[in-house]
Amino acid sequence: MIRRRYVIETIRSVFESYGYDEIETPAFEFLNVLTAKCGSEVRNQIYAFRDKAGRSLGLRYDLTTPLARVVASYLDLPKPFKRYCISRVWRYEEPQSGRYREFWQADVDIVGCSEMAADAEVIAVAITCLEKLGMKNFKVRLNNRKILESISSAVSVDRGNSLNVFRAIDKLDKIGIEGVKLELGRIGLSEDQVSRIVEYISVSGSIDSVEDDVWDMLDERGRQGFKELAEIVEELEVYGFSNYVLDLSLARGLDYYTGPIFEVLAETKVKVGSVAGGGRYDNLIETIGGPPTPATGISLGVDRIVEVLEEAGMLPESKTSTQLLIAYVNPSVRAEAVKLANKLRGEGFRVEVDIMGRKLERQLKYADAKGIPYVLIVGPRELKLGVYRLRDMVNRLEREVKVEDIAEVLKKGIK
Amino acid sequence: MIRRRYVIETIRSVFESYGYDEIETPAFEFLNVLTAKCGSEVRNQIYAFRDKAGRSLGLRYDLTTPLARVVASYLDLPKPFKRYCISRVWRYEEPQSGRYREFWQADVDIVGCSEMAADAEVIAVAITCLEKLGMKNFKVRLNNRKILESISSAVSVDRGNSLNVFRAIDKLDKIGIEGVKLELGRIGLSEDQVSRIVEYISVSGSIDSVEDDVWDMLDERGRQGFKELAEIVEELEVYGFSNYVLDLSLARGLDYYTGPIFEVLAETKVKVGSVAGGGRYDNLIETIGGPPTPATGISLGVDRIVEVLEEAGMLPESKTSTQLLIAYVNPSVRAEAVKLANKLRGEGFRVEVDIMGRKLERQLKYADAKGIPYVLIVGPRELKLGVYRLRDMVNRLEREVKVEDIAEVLKKGIK
Repeated sequence: MIRRRYVIETIRSVFESYGYDEIETPAFEFLNVLTAKCGSEVRNQIYAFRDKAGRSLGLRYDLTTPLARVVASYLDLPKPFKRYCISRVWRYEEPQSGRYREFWQADVDIVGCSEMAADAEVIAVAITCLEKLGMKNFKVRLNNRKILESISSAVSVDRGNSLNVFRAIDKLDKIGIEGVKLELGRIGLSEDQVSRIVEYISVSGSIDSVEDDVWDMLDERGRQGFKELAEIVEELEVYGFSNYVLDLSLARGLDYYTGPIFEVLAETKVKVGSVAGGGRYDNLIETIGGPPTPATGISLGVDRIVEVLEEAGMLPESKTSTQLLIAYVNPSVRAEAVKLANKLRGEGFRVEVDIMGRKLERQLKYADAKGIPYVLIVGPRELKLGVYRLRDMVNRLEREVKVEDIAEVLKKGIK
Repeated sequence: MIRRRYVIETIRSVFESYGYDEIETPAFEFLNVLTAKCGSEVRNQIYAFRDKAGRSLGLRYDLTTPLARVVASYLDLPKPFKRYCISRVWRYEEPQSGRYREFWQADVDIVGCSEMAADAEVIAVAITCLEKLGMKNFKVRLNNRKILESISSAVSVDRGNSLNVFRAIDKLDKIGIEGVKLELGRIGLSEDQVSRIVEYISVSGSIDSVEDDVWDMLDERGRQGFKELAEIVEELEVYGFSNYVLDLSLARGLDYYTGPIFEVLAETKVKVGSVAGGGRYDNLIETIGGPPTPATGISLGVDRIVEVLEEAGMLPESKTSTQLLIAYVNPSVRAEAVKLANKLRGEGFRVEVDIMGRKLERQLKYADAKGIPYVLIVGPRELKLGVYRLRDMVNRLEREVKVEDIAEVLKKGIK
C-alpha cells in the first residue's frame, strides 16, 4: 500500500496541477445507470445485487458512468467542468480462490467542452503522470470511433451490427488476428467483409500515412474523425509530446465512446498492455437523463502502473513510512519518551514509541524488523544531560545529539 | 470533496506521525467473515449479494473486520502491527430517495499488543487528529466490557442474555432511559433487574468516584476492568490529555469488543453524537480463523467530523484547488499559454488554460465562477516583452510581473 499510495499521490498532484478538482461518487449505483451504455461484455462483469427495498444496484465498473450520472443531475456546473477521481472499481471475472476483482483507477474528465483541446489535455495529463512517475517507454495509440464506423459502413456492415464489429476488433490483443476473423464471421460478416476489415485494422502509423491509405473509402463522418485526430496531435505537439501513433485496430470495449479514443501502452518486457485509456463520450450524459453534454476523459490503471514501476525497480523501497523509533532503557523513562515523541510529531516527524513494555534490545529488533531507519535512545542519563544517542539502523552508525538538534539530524541524516 | 480531502489528509498526516502504515483491504468480504462477530443490528445493515460463482459476499460495514481477516491469514507480521486505513464502509438503513448509505471512516489499529498503552495510544491519535483539525470541545467517554459483564452478572442476568443487555444499553442515546427500560423488560429481565441496571448505567464521572459507587458489587473481572481503565487514564495524562469521563452507559453496538471501549463526543450545538469510537477486540482475529491475537483500535467518523467543522466554519472555503488561470487574448497565442502553464506546473503550481477557445472576457468569467484566485493574461505584446498582467480575482487587483517572478508573486500574493 505504501507503493500504491506513492503512485496515487503523484498522480493526484499532476491532476491538480492541471486544474482538476476531486469529485468522488458512491461505490454503487442503480443498475440501470451502470448498464445504460456499457456493452454486453462489461454487463456480465458487474457485481449486481438488490437492497432490502428491492432496488437493483451494482458496484461501479468504471468511474465515468457515475460521473455522468452526477453531471446529469447537476445542471448548473460551470463549463468546462474538470474533475478527477482516484478510487476503486469492480469487475467480476472468473473467480479465483479468495480473490476479488477490485481495481484502482485514476480518472480525469472534462465535461461541457467539444473542442479537441479537451481530448488533447486529458492525454497530456496522463502522459505527465507517467513521466512524473519516471516511466520511460510508452506510446499513445489513437483512433476515432467515427473512422471505425466509416470503415464499417464502407464494407457494408449493417448499422446494428457495427458495435459487434468494434467489440470483435477490441479483442485483437487477447485473441489475435485469427480470433478476430472467427469472431467477425460468427457475427455474420461474409468472407469478403472479414478480409477487408482485417486489411483496414492492420493499418497504423502517422496520421498522414494512414489517411493516405484509407481516405478514399471514408465517408464524411470518417473524414471528420481524421480531422479531429489531426487537431489532437497538433495540440500534443504543443505539450511537447510526439510519441503517438494512429492505430485503426484500437476499438476499446465500452459502448459509450463517440469520437476520439486513445490508449497509452507501456512498452515493457512484461506485457501489461495499456496503462491508460479513454475517449470522448458525447452521448452518455444524455443517455442517463441529462441534457446533451459533450465530455471526454482518460483513466489511468493504478494497479498496472504499480506493476510496471515495480518491474522496473522504480518504486520506493521502504517498508514503513515511520522515520524514528524512540526507545527507552527502562519503563521509568517511558513517559518522557512519549512526550519527546509528541514534540517531534508536532514538528512533522513520523515517530513511534514502544507500547509493549519491552526491553531495549527487543525495541531495537522491532525497529529492524519494521524497517524504521532511526532509533533514538532515551534513558535517565540522557534526560539529565539533554543529549541522546541516535542510531542509524541502516548504516549501523551512532552519534550523540542534543534534543534541539534531533530534527535537523533526522532531516540530514547522520554523517 | 475538497473539504473531505482536507480532513482526510490531516488525519492521514497524524496517523503517520504516530508510526501507522496504511493497509487497504477490499470493499467486500465473504459474508461469513463479516457476520462472524457483528451483532444482529449490524447484520441487518450489511449489503449482501452472491457473485456468479454462488459465493455469498457483503460490502464491509466497518474497517476492523476486514483487517482481522487479513491479520488472521498473515501470521508473520512484526508485532505490534500498527496499521491505518481511511476508506468507505456501507450500512443499509431505511432507504431514502437516491441516497446510498455510504460512510468514510478513518481507523487506526494495533494488533499483537495486550498492554493498555496500546488503547491509550489509539485514543491519543484520535484526539491529536481532532486537535489538529481545530476542533475545540470534545470529551472522551470510557467504559470496559468487563465492568458491564460484571454488573450484568451482579444483577443475575443469564450469561447468554448479557449481550442483549449491552445492546439495549447501547441504544440509550437513541431511545432514552424509558426506551432502555422497555427493551430490558422485553428481553426478559425482571423489574428489579431493570431498575438495578438502570441505576448502575446512570453512573459517570472520574474513575475514582465511579469505582467508589460500584466496587463492592463487582467480581474479579469487573475490578480488572477498572484497573485497565486506570492504566489508560494514566497514559492519557502523559499525552497531556485530561478531558475524559468514565461512563457506565457506554456499551457500543459491536459484539467483538472484549475490554476497554471508548468514544469521543463532540460537544457542539448541533447534536452529531460521537465523532470517534473504538475498543479492544482480543477475540475477533481468532474467531475469524487466526491465532489468539490481542488487538485494539479506534475509528474516526470522517463525515461527522466534516459536519462538525463545517458547522463551526472551520473548513477551507475555496471551491477549487486551482491557483491560476492563464488566459490568452486570442487563439494565436494559446500555444504559448499552454507552454507557460506547463512550466509553472513543473514548479508545483496548479494552473489551468482555457480549452474552449473562448474570448478573454469569458475566460475571466470562468475563473470567477470556478473561484480561481489568480488570472495571468497572455497576449502578443506580453510574449514579446516577457511581462504579463497578473490579476487577483478576489481583491480585484492587477499588476505586471516578469515571467521569472510569477512563481514568487503567486506564493506571496499581490501586495
